[in-house]
Amino acid sequence: MVKQDTQKITSRENQLIKLAVRLREKKYREREKAFWLEGERAVREILPLVECVRHFFILEEHWPRWQSLIPPQAWSRVALLPEKLGSVVTAAETFAGVGAIVSLPEWNLDAVCAQKGTLLYLDHVADPGNVGTMIRTAQAFDLDGLLLSPGSADPFNPKVVRSAMGMLLSFPIITGVAAEDLKRMAARYDACIVGTTLNEKSEIHYQYCYTEPQILVIGSEAFGITKEIDEICHKYVKIPISFKAESLNAAVACGIIVAEIYRQQDIRHRTQQP
Amino acid sequence: MVKQDTQKITSRENQLIKLAVRLREKKYREREKAFWLEGERAVREILPLVECVRHFFILEEHWPRWQSLIPPQAWSRVALLPEKLGSVVTAAETFAGVGAIVSLPEWNLDAVCAQKGTLLYLDHVADPGNVGTMIRTAQAFDLDGLLLSPGSADPFNPKVVRSAMGMLLSFPIITGVAAEDLKRMAARYDACIVGTTLNEKSEIHYQYCYTEPQILVIGSEAFGITKEIDEICHKYVKIPISFKAESLNAAVACGIIVAEIYRQQDIRHRTQQP
Repeated sequence: MVKQDTQKITSRENQLIKLAVRLREKKYREREKAFWLEGERAVREILPLVECVRHFFILEEHWPRWQSLIPPQAWSRVALLPEKLGSVVTAAETFAGVGAIVSLPEWNLDAVCAQKGTLLYLDHVADPGNVGTMIRTAQAFDLDGLLLSPGSADPFNPKVVRSAMGMLLSFPIITGVAAEDLKRMAARYDACIVGTTLNEKSEIHYQYCYTEPQILVIGSEAFGITKEIDEICHKYVKIPISFKAESLNAAVACGIIVAEIYRQQDIRHRTQQP
Repeated sequence: MVKQDTQKITSRENQLIKLAVRLREKKYREREKAFWLEGERAVREILPLVECVRHFFILEEHWPRWQSLIPPQAWSRVALLPEKLGSVVTAAETFAGVGAIVSLPEWNLDAVCAQKGTLLYLDHVADPGNVGTMIRTAQAFDLDGLLLSPGSADPFNPKVVRSAMGMLLSFPIITGVAAEDLKRMAARYDACIVGTTLNEKSEIHYQYCYTEPQILVIGSEAFGITKEIDEICHKYVKIPISFKAESLNAAVACGIIVAEIYRQQDIRHRTQQP
């Protein structure tokens, strides 16, 4: 076996460092078809998919520990950094010692919808923390994928990557899904588009019977579901709250409804058992 | 009636400006027994409690609009700012045109626990966004109050104030509640301390029968419930999630459980009706 070597980076002018920093911007993520990910847990989670990692960035002092985790055939893609470059490369407040440039996953909208399961659609949800939390929730309750409208926060923005906490490669996420795409998919795969909103047609979410295939729509906190999406919703559900309160945080509302779908499925599974 | 006049502030060296900026820090909030709040919606929400507002800060150009909302007897507490001081006074990225210094509400732990309702206890939840979201959730589902352990994010930190979105004055919030306080209160008011955690004793949250008085404990995302609180929990509940996922965001988990409590109460109310 040819010995594969890591490379040492000493200057902030290095092209890899510049690339890592640029990937904080959406236009570079789109151009390079890659995103930046950092933190011990996040990097550990992508190790089973090491072929998607274009470059690892590891502080020199941390390398002995990572050496046993990263397979030798990927060592040529490891850049070792001195302490001082950690603060250059990180998109967080402090660098946790390890980061990576990872190829953007490419999912096919038809293939994701053809599963005929439960999908989440985020309609202009612009807050990166909320988008990340909803990705994490969708995975925790075994949804089949997440679709984002144009105008939603980019799921590969470093802030979203941080709050999503993992599995951004193995969980189907598709961006730029417009109202007409959603309408076409729902018709093609016979899916029910369920809006979460307070209107006179809304049913109480825990009295609603969730049956697949379905696409659950979450609107933005500030403006709710947009008019063009509202026009293609087949059903609506709402979460009853106190008359004293105005609304819930969007990610909390999403969690409550998705947990209810999971609960209903669990009850069905248990009652169907012999 | 004596004409009450607003004051104009032109210098960043003004004492009120300095006070507003200092209130971003906990030690000054404690010393002054006041906090900083900003944004159109937040300020509108405290207007019914105008006696708690020590000072309003309004951009000059916005004053004509606020003049009709703020009662004349409070005008002597209005400071009008030129545009350039907005960026000095704000704790957000941009100043929304209006802010206020508000007296910290003072709640009595015994009085809050004596209601014998449902309380939320945050055990070392350090993330300000999560704390704010949980305050909002607690209000939306009509809980009777929120208790925070020492080491939890301060609910009057500007980031928490922002994500709590209102009602920080009318909703009972008590900080610095240690394990021994919680234990004493639970004994005195016969409350069940319910830990939300994954252990062998945990019951599935939607199969658990929530009956008041109860104190629901949420631990930190990183470390869960601390040992000293764990030792005083009477019961445990958990949210079933996919085996592929590790955990939920703390505020989402809190929302799911609190919504379940609300649902169970709603069902009881409906079935108890003649």
